[in-house]
Amino acid sequence: MRVLFAAPTRLWDDWAPALQAACPEIKLCRKGAPESFDALIYAPGYPEDGTPLDFSAFVNARLVQSLWAGVERIVTNSSLTQPLCRMVDPGLAQGMVEYCTGWTMRAHLGMDLYPQDGIWRQGQTPPLATERRVTVLGMGELGSAVAGTLSDLGFAVTGWSQSGRPVAGIEVLAQNRLGEALSRADILICLLPDTPATRDLLDASRLALLPKGATLINAGRGTLIDETALLAALEQDRPGHAVLDVFKTEPLPPDHPFWSHPRITVTPHIAAETRPATAARIAAENLRRAMRGETLLHLVDPARGY
Amino acid sequence: MRVLFAAPTRLWDDWAPALQAACPEIKLCRKGAPESFDALIYAPGYPEDGTPLDFSAFVNARLVQSLWAGVERIVTNSSLTQPLCRMVDPGLAQGMVEYCTGWTMRAHLGMDLYPQDGIWRQGQTPPLATERRVTVLGMGELGSAVAGTLSDLGFAVTGWSQSGRPVAGIEVLAQNRLGEALSRADILICLLPDTPATRDLLDASRLALLPKGATLINAGRGTLIDETALLAALEQDRPGHAVLDVFKTEPLPPDHPFWSHPRITVTPHIAAETRPATAARIAAENLRRAMRGETLLHLVDPARGY
Repeated sequence: MRVLFAAPTRLWDDWAPALQAACPEIKLCRKGAPESFDALIYAPGYPEDGTPLDFSAFVNARLVQSLWAGVERIVTNSSLTQPLCRMVDPGLAQGMVEYCTGWTMRAHLGMDLYPQDGIWRQGQTPPLATERRVTVLGMGELGSAVAGTLSDLGFAVTGWSQSGRPVAGIEVLAQNRLGEALSRADILICLLPDTPATRDLLDASRLALLPKGATLINAGRGTLIDETALLAALEQDRPGHAVLDVFKTEPLPPDHPFWSHPRITVTPHIAAETRPATAARIAAENLRRAMRGETLLHLVDPARGY
Repeated sequence: MRVLFAAPTRLWDDWAPALQAACPEIKLCRKGAPESFDALIYAPGYPEDGTPLDFSAFVNARLVQSLWAGVERIVTNSSLTQPLCRMVDPGLAQGMVEYCTGWTMRAHLGMDLYPQDGIWRQGQTPPLATERRVTVLGMGELGSAVAGTLSDLGFAVTGWSQSGRPVAGIEVLAQNRLGEALSRADILICLLPDTPATRDLLDASRLALLPKGATLINAGRGTLIDETALLAALEQDRPGHAVLDVFKTEPLPPDHPFWSHPRITVTPHIAAETRPATAARIAAENLRRAMRGETLLHLVDPARGY
């Protein structure tokens, strides 16, 4: 089985050994005649001359396995006709759970209410987690894992997803109940993919539905939030603080107003990284399934875009 | 049943209604002839004229129920001969779990490695919790609850206690293995009571056993740490940071060097508060047991001091 590792050169050192170790029966190639490949493992940025990849030349490819969880830059390539699978890396999901749990706890405990100025401030006891309402937008693999962990920690968790299917005892509101999901979000965790349906979903009217002083954590995709609307909404204390790991433009430009805003915390898209050791095993499993003609894991629905 | 609520006046408004509601059959009094009381619910600071309470006058008292978890200011009162019980409030334990979890996550995720200065710093991915070693000193009600939650979150948790008895699948090192417990503490959580055996336990030689860059979280009692040794140890990066909720002198004086130290975070003894609604039910249960001559909950062993 010949597989093209269609990824920028900078990823080669970390990824090629992990992929090869996870799937010894493949021949992992950096280049070659497109029709010679049975599958591609793909990361945007390939080819490195900036031209879009022409998937149609890969006439024998049975699978395009994305190296990353987000596939918005792949589904929009109109030359793609092969089955496309997202990466669902257990290491990434665990990292995302830890990021969201950590920032949720920081907001919940009011950790930033104690400036180190010599003043002994008591009497600001936060409520227990059981009295704190958390809403998770997006209840896919990541959202479900985060919601489950926060629920185990005692938080009053509500999910929101297209289907509204409950997940492991957690109430999930369906698409038409977004307003309700937002209005009960003392802490709002956004883990939605970038699709036409989620772009600028959090606009001025939606943000205004948040409880006063709410904390917004966006670790999904930057396209979710109307950035101008967010700056205005912070003035109204809805939300009172935003922790943002993703942005419309990344890296976030040095002169972007988010950097210096007292109510915004910027992290540089580090909430979750795909980790070679764990992700390579998922890619290997899918390559084997593709060769055997079996059901693929995490197949993207082009109509939904993820 | 007549019970003296022997607590400073400022506690009366919060506590008296909760205690009375939890135990309608008692007559809760603020004063009266000592020999008229069947039990005391006690908080240091009573009487408010600063004299030590003379427990020996309460000849008919079958129980002294402490309002707080820490009893070091009660066991040292030599007039006490009645059974003394600590407060083990489920709300307090939950609050402690949340405080320790939050500060552990903050250290683990390196949340403070992202100054908001316009520089997009990637490549600092923290290890997953499974690769982060946490040691919990003190595996009583609070330590066990904290250790269990952190273990559930994936951390590699070790406990340390006098007995070394394992707790719910967590390895607990016995008293003579303190050095080992410290040497594997990427994050050290201290939840020890104040006893002669724990005073200045973390001195220069013990702190030097921590891994370089470790985080020390003390939410137990301030007497545990030799404060001068800690200041010197921070210079050696063992620990690299300390989060302190308790101190030898509280409130921490405004000119204390901890306040302005760049590697120390001070919180004003807020890790866990005893909450009237939940704690009153525990007090009520113990009052009933005392009247019936049954085994008391959370009876203090004067020899151990807790």
